[in-house]
Amino acid sequence: MKFTSRYATSLALLTDMYQLTMAQAYWAKGMAEQEAVFHLYFRKNPFNGGYTICAGLTDAIDYLKGFSFSSEDIAYLRSLKGSKQQPLFQEGFLAYLKDLIFTCDVDAIPEGTVVFPNEPLLRIQGPILQCQLFETPLLNILNFQTLVATKAARLTDAAQNDQIIEFGMRRAQGPDGSLSAARAAFIGGIGSSSNMLAGRYFNIPVKGTHAHSWVMSFPEEQDAFTAYADVFPHDSVFLVDTYNTLQGIKKAIQVAKALREKGTELVGIRLDSGDLAYLSKEGRRLLDEAGLPNVSIVASNDLDEYLIQSLKLQGARIDTWGIGTKLVTAYDQPALGGVYKLAALRAANGAWEYKLKLSEQLVKISTPGILQVRRYFSSDGFVADMIYSHEQPLPPFATMIDPADVTRRRTLPINHSFEELLVPIFIAGKQVYDEPELEAIQNRTKQQVMQLHESIRRFLNPHLYPVGLEEQLFNKKMEIILNIRHQEKEG
Amino acid sequence: MKFTSRYATSLALLTDMYQLTMAQAYWAKGMAEQEAVFHLYFRKNPFNGGYTICAGLTDAIDYLKGFSFSSEDIAYLRSLKGSKQQPLFQEGFLAYLKDLIFTCDVDAIPEGTVVFPNEPLLRIQGPILQCQLFETPLLNILNFQTLVATKAARLTDAAQNDQIIEFGMRRAQGPDGSLSAARAAFIGGIGSSSNMLAGRYFNIPVKGTHAHSWVMSFPEEQDAFTAYADVFPHDSVFLVDTYNTLQGIKKAIQVAKALREKGTELVGIRLDSGDLAYLSKEGRRLLDEAGLPNVSIVASNDLDEYLIQSLKLQGARIDTWGIGTKLVTAYDQPALGGVYKLAALRAANGAWEYKLKLSEQLVKISTPGILQVRRYFSSDGFVADMIYSHEQPLPPFATMIDPADVTRRRTLPINHSFEELLVPIFIAGKQVYDEPELEAIQNRTKQQVMQLHESIRRFLNPHLYPVGLEEQLFNKKMEIILNIRHQEKEG
Repeated sequence: MKFTSRYATSLALLTDMYQLTMAQAYWAKGMAEQEAVFHLYFRKNPFNGGYTICAGLTDAIDYLKGFSFSSEDIAYLRSLKGSKQQPLFQEGFLAYLKDLIFTCDVDAIPEGTVVFPNEPLLRIQGPILQCQLFETPLLNILNFQTLVATKAARLTDAAQNDQIIEFGMRRAQGPDGSLSAARAAFIGGIGSSSNMLAGRYFNIPVKGTHAHSWVMSFPEEQDAFTAYADVFPHDSVFLVDTYNTLQGIKKAIQVAKALREKGTELVGIRLDSGDLAYLSKEGRRLLDEAGLPNVSIVASNDLDEYLIQSLKLQGARIDTWGIGTKLVTAYDQPALGGVYKLAALRAANGAWEYKLKLSEQLVKISTPGILQVRRYFSSDGFVADMIYSHEQPLPPFATMIDPADVTRRRTLPINHSFEELLVPIFIAGKQVYDEPELEAIQNRTKQQVMQLHESIRRFLNPHLYPVGLEEQLFNKKMEIILNIRHQEKEG
Repeated sequence: MKFTSRYATSLALLTDMYQLTMAQAYWAKGMAEQEAVFHLYFRKNPFNGGYTICAGLTDAIDYLKGFSFSSEDIAYLRSLKGSKQQPLFQEGFLAYLKDLIFTCDVDAIPEGTVVFPNEPLLRIQGPILQCQLFETPLLNILNFQTLVATKAARLTDAAQNDQIIEFGMRRAQGPDGSLSAARAAFIGGIGSSSNMLAGRYFNIPVKGTHAHSWVMSFPEEQDAFTAYADVFPHDSVFLVDTYNTLQGIKKAIQVAKALREKGTELVGIRLDSGDLAYLSKEGRRLLDEAGLPNVSIVASNDLDEYLIQSLKLQGARIDTWGIGTKLVTAYDQPALGGVYKLAALRAANGAWEYKLKLSEQLVKISTPGILQVRRYFSSDGFVADMIYSHEQPLPPFATMIDPADVTRRRTLPINHSFEELLVPIFIAGKQVYDEPELEAIQNRTKQQVMQLHESIRRFLNPHLYPVGLEEQLFNKKMEIILNIRHQEKEG
């Protein structure tokens, strides 16, 4: 189910107040239609990692396509008062909003692509009033899904070929927090979810076991297992830690043997507490000794990618990992910090004026232009990404400069294979991009992560993947910065 | 706007897969209608704090009232296959779900109440099948809103009497992450939000300034200020740090003086980067010297309660705090960790059987019974909370025991004033509780926090507020634990 279809009302007000007051000011000053370019990007890979997986574009596309102010939205805006109790919004402006339709060009990096800091995930070009209104919803959608897809890719990497089930709904940040997280987790590589609404909306495979309360509602643990297997003879995973885990495993084995006599097999047991390394090894031994080598072991309990790695190092015999809180809230870094910056404005004479936002730190200064990312690759995988302004012709041997360390330069030979990462999504408000199915996006993530050297994928002090600004763009950016700093001194 | 009204589809599937498989198993075993009691509670105050503010009940009430499976939900369940490609759910069970209506009793602690670990925020009593289905959505709703309301109360405390604006939508965990956060932030004491949809849905006051891009779309910073004030002569707050903050302030002052000549006043300036202590003091000095003592200073930039305290200690002259990411994602602890545990089951003979979930740590073992929380207070504020099972008569001098340290006991004299925290919400599925308005809930939070000794409110190593189990309940719990442990040894 599409993003906007999940909501009963228009989402045009899913934006910050200041976007609407600026919109009225652009409108009042005759600037509403001035053509602008904004880029959406982040400044640092999340989780101190070496890469990021972008996600959320399908929902962002649907948001833009469905964009329009309803009469309820307009009535709400009309009701707002300023400090003198005067109407905050003018009737002429409200009429303008009522008729407003989305007419921008959008280019973006497809979901499931490996991306790096300072690369525009999305570029929007169109009337400045529109671009400004979309800042908040685009950030809201892309920031969170990119964050969770990245966490999921890390978990998938740590779990190697094991299955992972996402089951964090109870700890997610609201209903949509759980739905967007389930979608993004699937993109990042998680095979299934316990979230039934995500199953219905996105066709994600759903999985589950049973709770402690099931066991507690029977006088004897073993009776609870038997009863559950009666109802689900081919699909039972017993939670064995309600009272004493090793005894729970032994009871599960008794029931599994009884099932086998009836011609069915227990699917698995689940550990949800205690020493998962020890208990999974003991559990495996007991199951194997009982002739049940195909009964799998599911483990859960506040797991993350570091605990998975540690348990694997300890030789834990876990086949399936249940991951909740740490995944759906991206617990160790619950926000991506993506930003959306004005990069160019069309002057009256038709020429582009490059724009940037200064900062005291050079690396935090935004990059002006109409940006594209060119990714160079060899048969060994990805080599380097070059950010350039696509209205400027590139020289045959392009040089890229690391803006964090201007002495780091790299000339990229013309015979390198490359790909342009941003692809056209909308032209003048018309969609020109077919969104892939969720499963294809998940496959893309897997293939992309495989193109990264293992030194970039490691969790501790990953190697920095080379991303630079093309030399002409770098020089132009420096010129603008120095010019503003010079004006400041004179100001 | 009510919680369920925001969504276009039924939310009956907003639950975990295992709730539905257990439901089918209860149904198949003839146990669906067995009467059960579950409690929803958390084990630790968030943010290493001394207290928690409960929130989300209004949305939880609306969820339960609106609960029913749509034909699309049933069709989805019918489509699910087991491991042998057989239908996972039986037609008889799906027919049962289709007709299922909410018939439980619910008691809960009103929103905006100060609560502590192990106190049931909500108690549900009814058919076990229903109680089980509601576990995940109730946790999803109450966990997140309680978390954010608590963070907001801490921020409000740190900011003393200053205004706070919530403006975290761009970093929130999905659209609902921003809406639920805006609602809960208001409950915790935050006066306004930049979130226009939250404004429309909840009637929360909306506030905003303008962005750097507004300034960048003019050749000169001062022209940008003048143009904005032309459109909003009584409601302008200028963002002064696009190029150089001190020069930005001086330009804002020029425009403020020009405004005054036209008979209007600048509302404020906003600092969004740099050394907020230094810049706010310099800004205040410049504004005062220019005869603009009423122009207020708004500050933002990844602020939280610790930075607010630190800036106040440094003598920063900030009147209004803009708080985003750290509030709406509860950044330093993005999940509350609330749980929902079976506590009693009605036996065939009509008697209650007490239930508890064992754990290796005594403090993590759930408390059985049909629980109520009695809060004792004096004219100085809250004294202690006693958890008891309300089907057992209390002795005149009740003794409470701290389950984390059984040597800590306190006898509560009969003449102490007290209040029962859980109030009836639903009786047999009929609502008997009138939800207060959001503003009344915010006022309740303020009054409640004032009843806490400052040692409990401090951020660093807060004093532990006394919460204990009533002696009979404590003894009953010990008896059950020892009984299970004894059976384990024999098993």
